[in-house]
Amino acid sequence: MTAAPPLSPTDRSTVRRGAQRARTDRGELYAVLDAGLVGHLGVVLDGAPVVLPTGYGRRGDTLYLHGSTGAATLRAAAAEAPVCFTVTHVDGLVYARSAFHHSMNYRCAVVHGAARVVTDPAERLLGLEVLTEHLAPGSWTATRQPDRRELAATALLTLDLAEASVKVRTGPPVDDERDLAAPVWAGVLPVRTVVGEPVPDPLLDPAVPVPGRVSGRRLG
Amino acid sequence: MTAAPPLSPTDRSTVRRGAQRARTDRGELYAVLDAGLVGHLGVVLDGAPVVLPTGYGRRGDTLYLHGSTGAATLRAAAAEAPVCFTVTHVDGLVYARSAFHHSMNYRCAVVHGAARVVTDPAERLLGLEVLTEHLAPGSWTATRQPDRRELAATALLTLDLAEASVKVRTGPPVDDERDLAAPVWAGVLPVRTVVGEPVPDPLLDPAVPVPGRVSGRRLG
Repeated sequence: MTAAPPLSPTDRSTVRRGAQRARTDRGELYAVLDAGLVGHLGVVLDGAPVVLPTGYGRRGDTLYLHGSTGAATLRAAAAEAPVCFTVTHVDGLVYARSAFHHSMNYRCAVVHGAARVVTDPAERLLGLEVLTEHLAPGSWTATRQPDRRELAATALLTLDLAEASVKVRTGPPVDDERDLAAPVWAGVLPVRTVVGEPVPDPLLDPAVPVPGRVSGRRLG
Repeated sequence: MTAAPPLSPTDRSTVRRGAQRARTDRGELYAVLDAGLVGHLGVVLDGAPVVLPTGYGRRGDTLYLHGSTGAATLRAAAAEAPVCFTVTHVDGLVYARSAFHHSMNYRCAVVHGAARVVTDPAERLLGLEVLTEHLAPGSWTATRQPDRRELAATALLTLDLAEASVKVRTGPPVDDERDLAAPVWAGVLPVRTVVGEPVPDPLLDPAVPVPGRVSGRRLG
């Protein structure tokens, strides 16, 4: 599927629970990250964890994170403190014949590392492009690009994809043998994230058409 | 909307960035939590944050968390260490006339506290019911309930909703005055999470019909 090197888990990123669900292909890591809209960034503040939803984008083995989701993340990153960034997709609700075996189908990527604050103006510009294109492909060239003031106001972090793990559950419920003959429905209710019809800004000139980058947007 | 007491943020749970997006109604906290499928649980392990997707359910002001998502969470909770549990819904992609003002509409609940491992058998049973009914309403009574062995094998945590915050963004982009006349589409592309057609377990007797609790399931 991909020529990228396989994931080489460290002790921390080794999947312990449900190890049969762990994936070791770097292409799967990219796919899970690229399909997401927000991730959850965890930092430690005064000894306690803080987990906040965070916009992001990927370029090669670098994640760009939107630092403005919380001053907490910037403080942690400025100190080169460890962070954890997790992206999860729920793919299905798994109905079993017993309450105990109910489950979820999902794909999840967990990245560990030390985030770095981006200060170089050229890299800030690149990072904003990556973030913008992840959120809204095509928007970078179709809209006004950031000026000097906006670039200065953007808090941007990077995180290397050196230490990461991917976990995936797919397929039907795994019921006990003793329950298989029960007259109870079992199976999967698929879950998807979809877009609806575009809603124009009330301030928009109605003569401006919906561009293909919006009307054709599909989520991974 | 609700007779529940308002949220009383502590210093840690006070929304600092985008404070105009903070909500203080406990009913909104319940609504964001109840509409989610997974949350992201953050714990501190050896000084570093670990963030893992976690199944949950709410009963009053108590969250029940599925402890089996990682031994890490159990270790942290057994030590009554601080945790952070965050549930986020993406409601829309916000297309602006400038790259800088692109954004997302979302609802997010963040809960801080010390998780507790549930050891009492009766409370374990209750917690499993809450988890099961959150994931799959109606399944608790329609399927085989847990036996003693399954109850013992279930790792379950609770987290009080004492210290929590809710943040919501809605509405169109907020562009600069200077960009409003640009011939660039601006608005919101709504994002929703939906269920598809039920997929029966290949081991299921085809005579067992899809029950209403499955075919009628809607996501919040």
